[in-house]
Amino acid sequence: MKYPEPISKLIDSYMMLPGIGRKTATRMAFFTLGMDKDQVDEFAKNLIAAKTDLKSCKICGNITTDEICSICSDKNRDQSTILVVEQAKDIMSLDDMNGYNGLYHVLGGVLSPVDGIGPEDLNIKLLLNRLKENQNVKELILATNATPEGEATAQYLAKLVKPAGIKVTRLAHGLAVGSDIEYADEMTLKSAVLGRREI
Amino acid sequence: MKYPEPISKLIDSYMMLPGIGRKTATRMAFFTLGMDKDQVDEFAKNLIAAKTDLKSCKICGNITTDEICSICSDKNRDQSTILVVEQAKDIMSLDDMNGYNGLYHVLGGVLSPVDGIGPEDLNIKLLLNRLKENQNVKELILATNATPEGEATAQYLAKLVKPAGIKVTRLAHGLAVGSDIEYADEMTLKSAVLGRREI
Repeated sequence: MKYPEPISKLIDSYMMLPGIGRKTATRMAFFTLGMDKDQVDEFAKNLIAAKTDLKSCKICGNITTDEICSICSDKNRDQSTILVVEQAKDIMSLDDMNGYNGLYHVLGGVLSPVDGIGPEDLNIKLLLNRLKENQNVKELILATNATPEGEATAQYLAKLVKPAGIKVTRLAHGLAVGSDIEYADEMTLKSAVLGRREI
Repeated sequence: MKYPEPISKLIDSYMMLPGIGRKTATRMAFFTLGMDKDQVDEFAKNLIAAKTDLKSCKICGNITTDEICSICSDKNRDQSTILVVEQAKDIMSLDDMNGYNGLYHVLGGVLSPVDGIGPEDLNIKLLLNRLKENQNVKELILATNATPEGEATAQYLAKLVKPAGIKVTRLAHGLAVGSDIEYADEMTLKSAVLGRREI
């Protein structure tokens, strides 16, 4: 027996989401049938609103409902530091920890020759213009992921920005807090030893 | 920093789905922002269509877009057997295997005194009427899940139906095909020994 069209189409939609296979999508679709009509309408409305109402901040590339995001328009933040991330969602993780009060810049990805992503596909020009226009910036913190592509992108940016006399730093790599040495992989251990600090 | 409202609302919607926590919902919401506008519109449309266009089959309780589902209206199927399942999605799993060509009946749940679900909350009356009206039915296969509630519901139904002279059977319990005895749990092994067959 084939599923009736409305449910098979909904399963297909759920399957587009990351990490969702046919079994989970089917479970979600049947769960949806059991939800209140109001909740389903709200869900559909939220999907369209997220896609329609959100745009990129003209300064940093963060997601926002206005032209300029809440971070860029907050004059109480430290205007001398810009932290560079791959994706807008990384900003949320970093800003939640309360350890950083500066500005951000979203690259929108990483350099990846295999996938055909070069410097012109990322928000790098916007970043360079920002550094040129705002002479207050003293430090650029590169917080791309600790992947080969993230490292390469960080190296590329460092080379571009350093000649302008701006301090360029990279997030520390090492053992995760609370983790066991026994279970750490080789590359992480190597980073932890190379980046050791005096106590 | 707080998420802009459109994305935090979408995260809340994704979190209503079974097995989806805040981290996964956030990942899905950001993924949605990167999807084509058409795909998101289609997704929203499919959500509403599934909720609006699908109803329960008047005969068996299966999901359908018409009054009567495709199985109940298929006269080529064996009209002498009804297989009873907990949920409509179970029909899809069972019908895909091509080993059964009879009819189905969806209970819409199982008896569960703890959750306050009694016989009147399930499609049991509909099943009894069906057996009364259709004297062709010779066998009722009880395919509720192999959980304590599923077992209790099967026992309850068997007691109700047997006096009418209808053969009542239960799906076989035992080792899953391809599984190791070493990893089977005690209850499954017990079922496998009790239900042994001559070869």
